[in-house]
Amino acid sequence: MDYPNDQAPGAPVRSGIPEHGRVPKYYAVKARIDRLVDELGEGTPIPTERDLSERYEVARETVRQALRELVLEGKLRRQGRGTVVAGPKLEQPLSLASYTEGVRRQGRTPGRTLVTLDRFPCPEALAAETGLGRGEPVWHLERVLLADDERVGLESTYVAVDRVPRLDGEFDPDSSFYAYLARQGIAFGSADERIETVLATPREALLVGTPPALPMLLIHRVSRDTEGRPLERVRTLYRGDRFSFTVRLDG
Amino acid sequence: MDYPNDQAPGAPVRSGIPEHGRVPKYYAVKARIDRLVDELGEGTPIPTERDLSERYEVARETVRQALRELVLEGKLRRQGRGTVVAGPKLEQPLSLASYTEGVRRQGRTPGRTLVTLDRFPCPEALAAETGLGRGEPVWHLERVLLADDERVGLESTYVAVDRVPRLDGEFDPDSSFYAYLARQGIAFGSADERIETVLATPREALLVGTPPALPMLLIHRVSRDTEGRPLERVRTLYRGDRFSFTVRLDG
Repeated sequence: MDYPNDQAPGAPVRSGIPEHGRVPKYYAVKARIDRLVDELGEGTPIPTERDLSERYEVARETVRQALRELVLEGKLRRQGRGTVVAGPKLEQPLSLASYTEGVRRQGRTPGRTLVTLDRFPCPEALAAETGLGRGEPVWHLERVLLADDERVGLESTYVAVDRVPRLDGEFDPDSSFYAYLARQGIAFGSADERIETVLATPREALLVGTPPALPMLLIHRVSRDTEGRPLERVRTLYRGDRFSFTVRLDG
Repeated sequence: MDYPNDQAPGAPVRSGIPEHGRVPKYYAVKARIDRLVDELGEGTPIPTERDLSERYEVARETVRQALRELVLEGKLRRQGRGTVVAGPKLEQPLSLASYTEGVRRQGRTPGRTLVTLDRFPCPEALAAETGLGRGEPVWHLERVLLADDERVGLESTYVAVDRVPRLDGEFDPDSSFYAYLARQGIAFGSADERIETVLATPREALLVGTPPALPMLLIHRVSRDTEGRPLERVRTLYRGDRFSFTVRLDG
């Protein structure tokens, strides 16, 4: 056996170190800081770059690269001028339930801030994906998603104006859109989702408050009502360092 | 309206350019190359770094950073000494069906190469996640996943030796493990999955043949048989530039 018996099954085999044992210097430092993180609790400050570079006898830049990756992966987070151990990723269920419900179930307070709400004629690509008519008026509702006042994502919802004609007047953008739909008597029947990883664009990084090029989880959703008619097309970007998604599969 | 009507709903709003219009120089180049990629077809070589730096009047390093991100996102891929337009990401269904079936359904040929097969006493963390007994003998089967001979992922399967005692003797590691289980009369009942994004470790990058620190999609699976007894714990890493995952949600 060339890896320890107490290895967690969710962790990389051999701590990610190749069998030949040669790793970039920054990675060796990263693996050591990672073990340090496991010992310290959430919110605990880690030693300074200077302390770590002295402790591991490497250049400051080497420590910096190790910390950068641990931040991108959500194991550490910047706080003020220092760096602290981050909490576990939020686990959001993949379901027809809303973002709001998913976050609440984890004991966090969901929130949203409006970026933009506008209407325009349904473009070709949106018509093809949803089955809406080309040129039919649609709303585009773009909101930053919050959990406990922390910005964690960015969501674009496209919905026919015909469905919710008074969206601009009567919908509070810091409330659940799905709860609003339910009040209009509109119920979800089914949705197709696709998940991928992308890098945050400069605009997205600015709106969500992440480092540029942070790996994000992008979820595309096309949903239909209980009669199978097109309902919405949603593009939601979640911080890759703060979110994971869960699903129960049955036979 | 400050974004074009023909914007695809899956693409970043305003091409990722902030409302104030200021973007890092490399990102402006990236957005232009991205448009070029849309016009060229899959497999088409893009102009050289030198040509691009002359065309856009920027330093070679600026072009290099733009290309690096487009490669990480799977829009371009390295081929020999050049760079070509990559194909669309594979769309793998999240289901109880195997990797093998999912890849076949997309008209690709699945394959696997064995990294390691060994047995050891079930460690604490694995016992806690699966309900297997601590110390009970378990197999760890680690394989590189292929699609059309291209390495696309890395999979670790943990399963009780008691379930498949002759795994080391009678299982062909380049075949479907789920098909093997089915031949033993073992059927899947349900599974819990969790998806997140992580960076490839040096060992993983080496085994899968990706750049180090490429964003990957990591899927954790704990499955049970039709009687609800623990079956396997799987950790599968998929190239983030080559895979997306789909799921159908019903009300």
